[in-house]
Amino acid sequence: MKKTIITISRQFGSGGRSVGRAIAEKLGIPFYDKELVEQIALESGFAPNFVEEHGEHSPGKSILSYAFNSTGVPGVMNGLSTADFLWSIQCSAIMQVAEKGPCVIVGRNADYILKDREDVLHIFIHADMDYRADRIVRLYGESEKSPTSRLQEKDKRRSVNYQHYTGRTWGTAENYDICINTAVIGIEEAANIVVDVVNRSK
Amino acid sequence: MKKTIITISRQFGSGGRSVGRAIAEKLGIPFYDKELVEQIALESGFAPNFVEEHGEHSPGKSILSYAFNSTGVPGVMNGLSTADFLWSIQCSAIMQVAEKGPCVIVGRNADYILKDREDVLHIFIHADMDYRADRIVRLYGESEKSPTSRLQEKDKRRSVNYQHYTGRTWGTAENYDICINTAVIGIEEAANIVVDVVNRSK
Repeated sequence: MKKTIITISRQFGSGGRSVGRAIAEKLGIPFYDKELVEQIALESGFAPNFVEEHGEHSPGKSILSYAFNSTGVPGVMNGLSTADFLWSIQCSAIMQVAEKGPCVIVGRNADYILKDREDVLHIFIHADMDYRADRIVRLYGESEKSPTSRLQEKDKRRSVNYQHYTGRTWGTAENYDICINTAVIGIEEAANIVVDVVNRSK
Repeated sequence: MKKTIITISRQFGSGGRSVGRAIAEKLGIPFYDKELVEQIALESGFAPNFVEEHGEHSPGKSILSYAFNSTGVPGVMNGLSTADFLWSIQCSAIMQVAEKGPCVIVGRNADYILKDREDVLHIFIHADMDYRADRIVRLYGESEKSPTSRLQEKDKRRSVNYQHYTGRTWGTAENYDICINTAVIGIEEAANIVVDVVNRSK
């Protein structure tokens, strides 16, 4: 079936967002990342930076603490915990944008949420630790923690969130149609691979 | 760096061997699979079908039983167990063929054995269970066991062997440069992706 929607899951620092943006530009289709976060935020009543921070992270103590202590948003809505409420809003938003037509969606477990649509191509972007460490320092600057610690912490949080909501193991090749190591293949070439597959799909 | 050697790791029934053969034909370079097994067998003194059967399987009871009871080959050679001796011969054979120049090597944990060569592109081919079950029945016929059981058993044995000799988890995207789901992408298109990347690498 013709693939018109592309989900990009990615390790932090791998350049997955850049790959997604390049694919969207080359195909001339919408790109959802921060835009999607803003839409989710508007629908949920959460602050955009709260959604961005917690939308892919583990549904643990920190989210509940945040909800109870900082936002004033109650921890339970419609019988759901804060994290589960956020998840349900994310699912709904991602299914809505997929219904609108061709697009690229980065992160937010969109691979799982859209797993039953045959017009979707699921991509995973990863890279070696050294490449990612170098990249996050260039993009986001230094911090108190070492780049490796920051990456391990992000990887862990995304992994726990993914496992919790999908029952799948984060980073397993079987979850995706194509996985690409940007440290070896490069960001531009990764985008080219996906664009060629989309253009040749029938 | 220009990629001239391609390793193909694959789930049983995914068509990884066909992808590898198509890549080798398109690039006009040697293809090592059964040929490699024969070379290993010649060097080790094992029967070719023994090497083919056990070269990617767990180093457990069955191999030792086979060695002690059926082949007449002693279980310990040069201080190594039968399985470890076979592994050392495989490593040596794979490093030798890589030294010869551009080629495609299927299976035998070549991804790990050649992990330090920068001129190597590591590919993992996988596919959904239904696709693989249908494919092995078409290719190899029915057997007493269900196709799903046969696949699960093969997956398990390859996984245990890979974990034992590489310390890595089988099927994790991070172990490879590109992973492709042939059930979605197709065998021919999977080969095209790899050929394009090789041809564009510098």
